[in-house]
Amino acid sequence: MVVLCGTDRPPGLEPVERAADVRYVPADRLAAELPGADVLFVWDFTSRAVPAAWPAADAAPGWVHIASAGVDTLAFDALRDGDTVLTNSRGVFDAAIAEYVLGLVLAFAKDLPGTLDAQRHHDWRHRETETIAGRPALVVGTGPIGRAIARLLSAAGLRVSGVGRTARRDDPDFGEVHAAGELRRVLPDTDFVVLAAPLTAQTTGMIDAAALAAMRPGARLINVGRSPLVRTDDLVAALRSGSIAGAALDVFDAEPLPADSPLWTLPGLLVSPHMSGDFAGSLTTLAQLFVANFDRWRQGRPLHNVVDKHLGYVPGGAAGPATAGHPVDEVPVAGTGQEGLPAWTRT
Amino acid sequence: MVVLCGTDRPPGLEPVERAADVRYVPADRLAAELPGADVLFVWDFTSRAVPAAWPAADAAPGWVHIASAGVDTLAFDALRDGDTVLTNSRGVFDAAIAEYVLGLVLAFAKDLPGTLDAQRHHDWRHRETETIAGRPALVVGTGPIGRAIARLLSAAGLRVSGVGRTARRDDPDFGEVHAAGELRRVLPDTDFVVLAAPLTAQTTGMIDAAALAAMRPGARLINVGRSPLVRTDDLVAALRSGSIAGAALDVFDAEPLPADSPLWTLPGLLVSPHMSGDFAGSLTTLAQLFVANFDRWRQGRPLHNVVDKHLGYVPGGAAGPATAGHPVDEVPVAGTGQEGLPAWTRT
Repeated sequence: MVVLCGTDRPPGLEPVERAADVRYVPADRLAAELPGADVLFVWDFTSRAVPAAWPAADAAPGWVHIASAGVDTLAFDALRDGDTVLTNSRGVFDAAIAEYVLGLVLAFAKDLPGTLDAQRHHDWRHRETETIAGRPALVVGTGPIGRAIARLLSAAGLRVSGVGRTARRDDPDFGEVHAAGELRRVLPDTDFVVLAAPLTAQTTGMIDAAALAAMRPGARLINVGRSPLVRTDDLVAALRSGSIAGAALDVFDAEPLPADSPLWTLPGLLVSPHMSGDFAGSLTTLAQLFVANFDRWRQGRPLHNVVDKHLGYVPGGAAGPATAGHPVDEVPVAGTGQEGLPAWTRT
Repeated sequence: MVVLCGTDRPPGLEPVERAADVRYVPADRLAAELPGADVLFVWDFTSRAVPAAWPAADAAPGWVHIASAGVDTLAFDALRDGDTVLTNSRGVFDAAIAEYVLGLVLAFAKDLPGTLDAQRHHDWRHRETETIAGRPALVVGTGPIGRAIARLLSAAGLRVSGVGRTARRDDPDFGEVHAAGELRRVLPDTDFVVLAAPLTAQTTGMIDAAALAAMRPGARLINVGRSPLVRTDDLVAALRSGSIAGAALDVFDAEPLPADSPLWTLPGLLVSPHMSGDFAGSLTTLAQLFVANFDRWRQGRPLHNVVDKHLGYVPGGAAGPATAGHPVDEVPVAGTGQEGLPAWTRT
């Protein structure tokens, strides 16, 4: 078994080490170590090393697991079309990301960045700010992360609707879900647009100049998904022209975001370093999820979080197998029942 | 009728001006204009001019209304012991302050100040942050503002309890309410301490060195009430020594906070300019509340929000007469029924 990792290794893999020959491998040695491996655990989920190393293996690993919800770094033909089972870390980040998004919504509404800026200048800068009760929010992505966001924003008083693959009116978390094709039509009706969709061919560039132009002048865009959901140049233009009021990006085309990127200083843009889901303890939870799946794999039992490699996510809109602070086997197995809904985001 | 105000006047008082001789008076002319006035409307709620001007009136005004929830600037013997009816603006700020407090809780949990600081330095500073689900919060003050805070923090997943005048276990908003005398005993059990109590002789200095020492090292203090609830020197010492993790103050002993105050740069302290309740439209709502009360006064009907001048707040723990965005007469009159609970905060 090969663990693709940098200098930090997943914690608590001793049970796996007792049962298997585990090799911890950096990106530049993956092609040398992958041949003969039955299992590949992609701990460094940002790595792009897997597609390049894949042809080196005579026989592909039977199982690849990634320590993230998004599987876009593993979207290559040989893996998609082969027999390898792909699993992800769906469920680990849902609650933390939802809280992060609510924090951003409130930071925008209460102008917390303006308050911190005034504090740095010792400036008593009294303002009236916005309330959020009853205001509309649109969550793009109706997988477990989008659902957790919808539930929490609703609990805080926002009027939430969703965008998913298919329209429906009686969704338990969203109430109304609009079909993705309706996005531009419904964007003028909302104050907060939250992106929590998987990155697929269908979702790439969904927020472009036309979508941004459809948004309200006072609206804010929050992306906790993947950067290419948004056409960055179009967002830069929209913020420069003031056609939307603000945005928060937790994901970028290149990560870490280079120090000379214009995004750092764009007016109304809040930059955070791909951390919305990374709560204290999340590494342990991620590793535990793998250990539990490894146990299932050894016993020949169905794995948690099997990704539909053609859809690019785990089908089924319900909660994932693990939530922050909960042992993974206390919660139901995902990936069964329900229609194929984006099941996603980050990390 | 005299309106004590600075350069900004309450909007929409035309109905009152048609029915009464209304004089808009700055603090330095209050003593000259107060004699003969039947009604005093304290629009500038921060002004300390009323106690000094009061003796100039041969007969005290029959009714004083203040455009704030707190009435501490009107706590002087001649008003308290006389026949003047005192009313406040209870209910206007509840929802906005609750949102503001939740925003602060999430800003602390997700280290939003650290993210904004990193952004200023173009620094990709990835961290793991905290979740709030299931964590304990203690709201001091069980009036309408404290209740709105408790409901919203609970909705966002925190485990909320309260501190009020009397202990109880079945409070509809708090569940458990501890008696004020138990404060120091329960402080070690919580992560977020929110002050939303009226400033009275009983509450002054309730957060002192001993209370701060009882708090968890990771805990944060949020004061949206009045500054003297906290012994500022003790808080400074606690933050300097790191005995608590952070604090947010929206209220100060002197407002505006002087530019040379050490509070602006204290580690872990978030300073905001007494704005937690000041949503866009709040001035109109405040003025409407007065206009509605003026109508009642002319007709000899019972006034909204009659303050118990000895308690220092409107008795009765239920919601106030006006909430953000709601015309004041759509909601029930406060100040009837229920036991005397702190009915308070800000503005």
